[in-house]
Amino acid sequence: MNAEFATEKHEKTARLETASIDLARAGRCGFPEVVYAEGKTTETVVAIFEEQLAHGIAPYATRVRPETLEVLTHHFPDGIPNPTARTFRFLPKNPQPTCGKVAIVTAGTSDLPVAEEARETVLWMNVEAVMIHDVGVAGPHRLMERVGDFSGCAAAVVIAGMEGALPSVVGGYVDFPVIAVPTSVGYGANFGGLSALLGMLNSCASNVAVVNIDAGFKGGYLAGMIATQHKNS
Amino acid sequence: MNAEFATEKHEKTARLETASIDLARAGRCGFPEVVYAEGKTTETVVAIFEEQLAHGIAPYATRVRPETLEVLTHHFPDGIPNPTARTFRFLPKNPQPTCGKVAIVTAGTSDLPVAEEARETVLWMNVEAVMIHDVGVAGPHRLMERVGDFSGCAAAVVIAGMEGALPSVVGGYVDFPVIAVPTSVGYGANFGGLSALLGMLNSCASNVAVVNIDAGFKGGYLAGMIATQHKNS
Amino acid sequence: MNAEFATEKHEKTARLETASIDLARAGRCGFPEVVYAEGKTTETVVAIFEEQLAHGIAPYATRVRPETLEVLTHHFPDGIPNPTARTFRFLPKNPQPTCGKVAIVTAGTSDLPVAEEARETVLWMNVEAVMIHDVGVAGPHRLMERVGDFSGCAAAVVIAGMEGALPSVVGGYVDFPVIAVPTSVGYGANFGGLSALLGMLNSCASNVAVVNIDAGFKGGYLAGMIATQHKNS
Amino acid sequence: MNAEFATEKHEKTARLETASIDLARAGRCGFPEVVYAEGKTTETVVAIFEEQLAHGIAPYATRVRPETLEVLTHHFPDGIPNPTARTFRFLPKNPQPTCGKVAIVTAGTSDLPVAEEARETVLWMNVEAVMIHDVGVAGPHRLMERVGDFSGCAAAVVIAGMEGALPSVVGGYVDFPVIAVPTSVGYGANFGGLSALLGMLNSCASNVAVVNIDAGFKGGYLAGMIATQHKNS
Amino acid sequence: MNAEFATEKHEKTARLETASIDLARAGRCGFPEVVYAEGKTTETVVAIFEEQLAHGIAPYATRVRPETLEVLTHHFPDGIPNPTARTFRFLPKNPQPTCGKVAIVTAGTSDLPVAEEARETVLWMNVEAVMIHDVGVAGPHRLMERVGDFSGCAAAVVIAGMEGALPSVVGGYVDFPVIAVPTSVGYGANFGGLSALLGMLNSCASNVAVVNIDAGFKGGYLAGMIATQHKNS
Amino acid sequence: MNAEFATEKHEKTARLETASIDLARAGRCGFPEVVYAEGKTTETVVAIFEEQLAHGIAPYATRVRPETLEVLTHHFPDGIPNPTARTFRFLPKNPQPTCGKVAIVTAGTSDLPVAEEARETVLWMNVEAVMIHDVGVAGPHRLMERVGDFSGCAAAVVIAGMEGALPSVVGGYVDFPVIAVPTSVGYGANFGGLSALLGMLNSCASNVAVVNIDAGFKGGYLAGMIATQHKNS
Amino acid sequence: MNAEFATEKHEKTARLETASIDLARAGRCGFPEVVYAEGKTTETVVAIFEEQLAHGIAPYATRVRPETLEVLTHHFPDGIPNPTARTFRFLPKNPQPTCGKVAIVTAGTSDLPVAEEARETVLWMNVEAVMIHDVGVAGPHRLMERVGDFSGCAAAVVIAGMEGALPSVVGGYVDFPVIAVPTSVGYGANFGGLSALLGMLNSCASNVAVVNIDAGFKGGYLAGMIATQHKNS
Amino acid sequence: MNAEFATEKHEKTARLETASIDLARAGRCGFPEVVYAEGKTTETVVAIFEEQLAHGIAPYATRVRPETLEVLTHHFPDGIPNPTARTFRFLPKNPQPTCGKVAIVTAGTSDLPVAEEARETVLWMNVEAVMIHDVGVAGPHRLMERVGDFSGCAAAVVIAGMEGALPSVVGGYVDFPVIAVPTSVGYGANFGGLSALLGMLNSCASNVAVVNIDAGFKGGYLAGMIATQHKNS
Repeated sequence: MNAEFATEKHEKTARLETASIDLARAGRCGFPEVVYAEGKTTETVVAIFEEQLAHGIAPYATRVRPETLEVLTHHFPDGIPNPTARTFRFLPKNPQPTCGKVAIVTAGTSDLPVAEEARETVLWMNVEAVMIHDVGVAGPHRLMERVGDFSGCAAAVVIAGMEGALPSVVGGYVDFPVIAVPTSVGYGANFGGLSALLGMLNSCASNVAVVNIDAGFKGGYLAGMIATQHKNS
Repeated sequence: MNAEFATEKHEKTARLETASIDLARAGRCGFPEVVYAEGKTTETVVAIFEEQLAHGIAPYATRVRPETLEVLTHHFPDGIPNPTARTFRFLPKNPQPTCGKVAIVTAGTSDLPVAEEARETVLWMNVEAVMIHDVGVAGPHRLMERVGDFSGCAAAVVIAGMEGALPSVVGGYVDFPVIAVPTSVGYGANFGGLSALLGMLNSCASNVAVVNIDAGFKGGYLAGMIATQHKNS
Repeated sequence: MNAEFATEKHEKTARLETASIDLARAGRCGFPEVVYAEGKTTETVVAIFEEQLAHGIAPYATRVRPETLEVLTHHFPDGIPNPTARTFRFLPKNPQPTCGKVAIVTAGTSDLPVAEEARETVLWMNVEAVMIHDVGVAGPHRLMERVGDFSGCAAAVVIAGMEGALPSVVGGYVDFPVIAVPTSVGYGANFGGLSALLGMLNSCASNVAVVNIDAGFKGGYLAGMIATQHKNS
Repeated sequence: MNAEFATEKHEKTARLETASIDLARAGRCGFPEVVYAEGKTTETVVAIFEEQLAHGIAPYATRVRPETLEVLTHHFPDGIPNPTARTFRFLPKNPQPTCGKVAIVTAGTSDLPVAEEARETVLWMNVEAVMIHDVGVAGPHRLMERVGDFSGCAAAVVIAGMEGALPSVVGGYVDFPVIAVPTSVGYGANFGGLSALLGMLNSCASNVAVVNIDAGFKGGYLAGMIATQHKNS
Repeated sequence: MNAEFATEKHEKTARLETASIDLARAGRCGFPEVVYAEGKTTETVVAIFEEQLAHGIAPYATRVRPETLEVLTHHFPDGIPNPTARTFRFLPKNPQPTCGKVAIVTAGTSDLPVAEEARETVLWMNVEAVMIHDVGVAGPHRLMERVGDFSGCAAAVVIAGMEGALPSVVGGYVDFPVIAVPTSVGYGANFGGLSALLGMLNSCASNVAVVNIDAGFKGGYLAGMIATQHKNS
Repeated sequence: MNAEFATEKHEKTARLETASIDLARAGRCGFPEVVYAEGKTTETVVAIFEEQLAHGIAPYATRVRPETLEVLTHHFPDGIPNPTARTFRFLPKNPQPTCGKVAIVTAGTSDLPVAEEARETVLWMNVEAVMIHDVGVAGPHRLMERVGDFSGCAAAVVIAGMEGALPSVVGGYVDFPVIAVPTSVGYGANFGGLSALLGMLNSCASNVAVVNIDAGFKGGYLAGMIATQHKNS
Repeated sequence: MNAEFATEKHEKTARLETASIDLARAGRCGFPEVVYAEGKTTETVVAIFEEQLAHGIAPYATRVRPETLEVLTHHFPDGIPNPTARTFRFLPKNPQPTCGKVAIVTAGTSDLPVAEEARETVLWMNVEAVMIHDVGVAGPHRLMERVGDFSGCAAAVVIAGMEGALPSVVGGYVDFPVIAVPTSVGYGANFGGLSALLGMLNSCASNVAVVNIDAGFKGGYLAGMIATQHKNS
Repeated sequence: MNAEFATEKHEKTARLETASIDLARAGRCGFPEVVYAEGKTTETVVAIFEEQLAHGIAPYATRVRPETLEVLTHHFPDGIPNPTARTFRFLPKNPQPTCGKVAIVTAGTSDLPVAEEARETVLWMNVEAVMIHDVGVAGPHRLMERVGDFSGCAAAVVIAGMEGALPSVVGGYVDFPVIAVPTSVGYGANFGGLSALLGMLNSCASNVAVVNIDAGFKGGYLAGMIATQHKNS
């Protein structure tokens, strides 16, 4: 278990007025509960952060609205906002060594916000991120020029919209798991990301697993978890 | 108009008991009506063939059941059966020069029957076919080893199931149209070819058009038509 | 390969801050990379254009927002904006002869923006466009009155929403490929263009291939490519 | 109300062991209840027929299995079996004049079984049927050659699979309602008739209404009802 | 053919700048072309109306935006606007007798705009409309109280959202065709009208045909056409 | 808790070779675990039954294949097989009073197997079942004739395919919950029960809840549970 | 029948200008008609409320717009508004004893509005509600800590978005019916609540029935009806 | 790179008559190409195996038909067949140490074939598998009794049909990645595994990634790859 995220196991739940915080998550799952800020008021996010900080937890929130992000930035000067990713995170206190880096690969520039959410997640987990942008399959030499950058990586997050072909191609070049993130980028028969999602699920590459559409956080989280597997040995 | 397919324009329709044959198709569309044998009895197919031959048309049938194919083979010794493709075709009488060959590319060995249907169609149209098999994206060097084979081609038919990524990759290597044929090969979330179909429709390569699932005939027909465009100049 | 689009093959990728430009596209694919402006800032589009112009490439952008279009119009007085099509293009420097015109056909007046995007694409490729508007199948004589306009064409782009029947009917009249573009025009059970898309994929006409919903660019690009096939002979 | 179908209004339901027969249907709806034989045993169909005949009703059953059809043919020598349509019907006793014929139109020969079911239904209702076969849109002159056959019709049943475009084209030629019947004929992205169904629902012709996939009975029933509307004047 | 809609048959198409008007529609189909105003400018609608009036046609437009409706109301004082229905129509000049009225039935008050569009269409066709509102199946006695109102009707337009059960129930009470119009009223798993559409297509009542979601115009048009069938006798 | 189903709470799981039996289910949930026999061998079902009987549990299995049913019938002479329902059940030892009967209502005779599964489930729970068959909405008087049979019922299971309208209509007549079971009965656009499922989920009646397609067991189980609610007072 | 909701049975329908009120609903169904305010004007809601109050009915409206809610609050000082639930209700006059409470359980804080709608419904029916918030399955101990709160409940409403797993887990702990309400909370492949809906319909727990997406009202209504079943004994 | 799978890098592709074998896969991706036997003849599988063995590769085939499995078993006595999994594998020659075991968890007994395919894959990769069967969420204590078995695991493959809730619950208990495999087990609205697939993609647990329906191989492959990550450190 990563020491910097530890909390007392016997205190399992903190009840706020509108939420109940799972304080035991890091003990069970390796990392603390992440705040999904989508349907929460700014006040609620602040309250959860303070409760987590009081228990020695380094908070992290995703899908933060711009106005909430601004309040958090002023209220918690130690925190790190990322407006493109729509995230706010704190630095872990006792960084641990990891067993590898995480490559974050995009097919096009429109996939950037999802890639940034993945990157922030990986950084919050103490893992180094290698960014490889705009290497979609229609210009095949672009990916080949970057294959060397996969060296030292333990996992890749591959982000693509439209036909979602990039994870299959990356999967054919590497010897570690690829977490594929379909995006809703595209139009017409992409049906909000369905085309990329189905493409990735049917990937002919054996080392490709898939997460939800636009789920940069989950892609980064799984890759980061793989890159910290040494803790089990 | 291809001379070998010509018929008298003023006779437009031949009425059989159970079908009406469009005799003017070659005049209007460049090639005669092709017989879709799926729901037809052997007797009907034989009758249509004889009617077409009587009007100087070289017949061609697709989706022929094995028992019908056997009858046709005995009845029309000049015809060419292909059990894998489930087709039966006649040679055109006055072969014309064309402006290029057609490449027929498959992602895996399971796509073979669809590829054979495309090939028979192209041959019936007097166009040379170049077969490139089993070059799916998970082994990227396999396609690169064959890129030279595209030389002299005017169009490609690219056939793939699963995520249907191969047409996008081929599209990035060539300067002619790619007709993508999704196949129902795969399982689970490929939903009978839907995953490959959506992937191909959302291809990030500009030169990829799509036909129906498992439609080897239509893929070959369009590519063959492109390879005979000189007739318009 | 069209000479006016040529660039040095040994310089393959230009890396901007937020994008990597495929400079070798025209060498491989016959035409340079087209800028899909949807998710890009005005600054990015300007930077890409300048990089392309510096390499002797005639740029072309689609899905350009009105405010970006205005900036481009002022910044590049040689370029040609089309607000209906939402495109911005430059004239190729050494126009080449082609083997035919491209017919662009619409079912109704609501399909106009998609048709304009197809037309701009065809013009950028140095190909002549023949516009045939508002000839949907419910008034069958309207198309018949225009059949003569198909003379001298090498391909047609047929654009329709609702039931998407027009490409099948056009396909029955012509001896060249029909690229069908389904549009999201309609309501209720057209499900954002799905009805037209499925109709076109299941066309009983052999010479109909399909591209994505509202994909006027891709429809024009494929038709234009067919009309410039002489370069392979 | 059609006299030949009348029954006593005060007897409304006949309870058999496994079914309850709506004896009042003809009084309320103009025609008696039709037996949908799909999930019923031969004994049940025979029992219902005898009950209906005892009340002076001319029975009619659809979706009859071959073995049941054989039994019915022997048991009721006055009845008329149609193996292609999978129907069994009795002649009405007092034929009434109608206000028009019904045209039954098919796109291809594979639509024949559905067309036969429509025809049997129309005949059971005492209405004359005009059959127009194999006039799909890819050979447009074939329909034009038959337009004269619509003369004297009060409604048309138009049956098509694949893209389902034929009802729109017929709708543009006639001044009476078109009942469109999508069929599951086709393959791949026709998704069991969905493509034809959606195409017909989105028809740009104002006079096209749609019934269920392969629903020849319902198509014929509605057309027959329109052709007997004089009874309301 | 309804005399009041007649035009000269030899003038078939009027070409405006942005539309081509089918002047021969009434001769072929019984009623003139109806203007679908959705994607058209106010100027275009005015121009089409003037062209139609000049040829003795009584114009009718649906899906008219409020601002266009206001202009039409001032410009054509003889026309009749209906803001709820979003329609604008002219009175036919020589009203003809019809063979019956049309019942327009709604399941709930939210279906009113669709019902009004159906009513305006029926009135434009010279047919009398009987309105029966808010008789959804959860209060079964409400429909039974109104059954007498169906007397003298030749067809019904039945409009419902949610589960779309009302047409089946109405179908069981009447001896004329029911045109079912699914609406997008509802939420959640109604999926924009899909639940009502599928329900109506699968109706167990034999006399129910279906049109597109929210297609009040088409529902009214078909019912009106049935109510004017006497012209064929 | 129903006494006849009780077992010792401290023994929670019985591990067989290929299954683990939840012995504590009756203590937690009121009734013991029911055996879903679909993917299980006859031997496994026998072994589970013997284990359950040894713990004083009255077993019940659904989706039993014919050959398994025959073995069970010989092996357990006290058990009650129902081949139509494909179930096998034992009588509870100490029947308890309940607070009401359960009505089981079908739209057509094809819904019988699902209705029988519901009935067997209700009987296994010691609850009386009232069967009301073949009262679909197209013959509305048929249901009205049976409304009196709802007297004394605490819940209804309403089973229908096609448009699935019957639960809404029943819901409008009764003052207790309706559990709606969609069936896959029908063809074409019923899409394997989807039309009935969506119809029932969108029911305008407030007292209608839905279970899975063809889920006679679950419909009966929920209705039976409601009819034994007195145990909580 | 609950006495406080009673009305005279012989007055069955009140006709307002734009709606017809089912006054007999409480007599037939146990509770009066609930006003679905979505498509209704404020004036209509006020008029219906006054008509219901005049007949001794305690009104209740759901899906009330904020501006309508404000008017109702001023106009009917005895009524109880709930802006989160978007409801407005009156107290029943003669509260009756019930046979149990209703548990309302949410997976996350974003499900709150749906839960509040369920709670208001239950309260309007005179039933006590037990709220159990934010106990989604990723923190399994959170639900276990609250299991004791189910004591004395007759039914549960379980509300969840995303994968909709919570009802299955709750179903495994309780001996009463669970009414599952899928919500549209989530993103990407939840497709507006479809993922939760399908998950709940396929629940492996026998005591889980499902209502429409976001249908807090219907969930509460069914649970409340179960909790008042004693009236049938 | 795992030494036992090594081959010479400069020989990249072996061309058989009907397939091209990617000999460089283990060098690039850590493990050799796995033979997907679905569409291949027995002869082809034997030929590929012999080619792979000749290059020092330990072959592994999935989706092997029973008759092919029998031939392989006789032909390759060193290989290990698994009829339930439909796989055939060889032992790696130089087993390497790994960093953890893989837990394979099923919701019900029907998920066994998929679990066996995952297990064979994991064993072929030299990784130890821990089987935890039949712990679906409706009996929550069953999983809790087995939580200790996760000790020493580096990843879990969690296999479930129906609502697919089990991966979310497992995800909440463990500190390593969960690879979720949806199965087509279930009926009705599970739509061939779609319900489980969507449920897993929308999992509220952060550490859950998903593969294709019934894709036991891919689930095992990804988990096995995670368990051998030490090779990168």
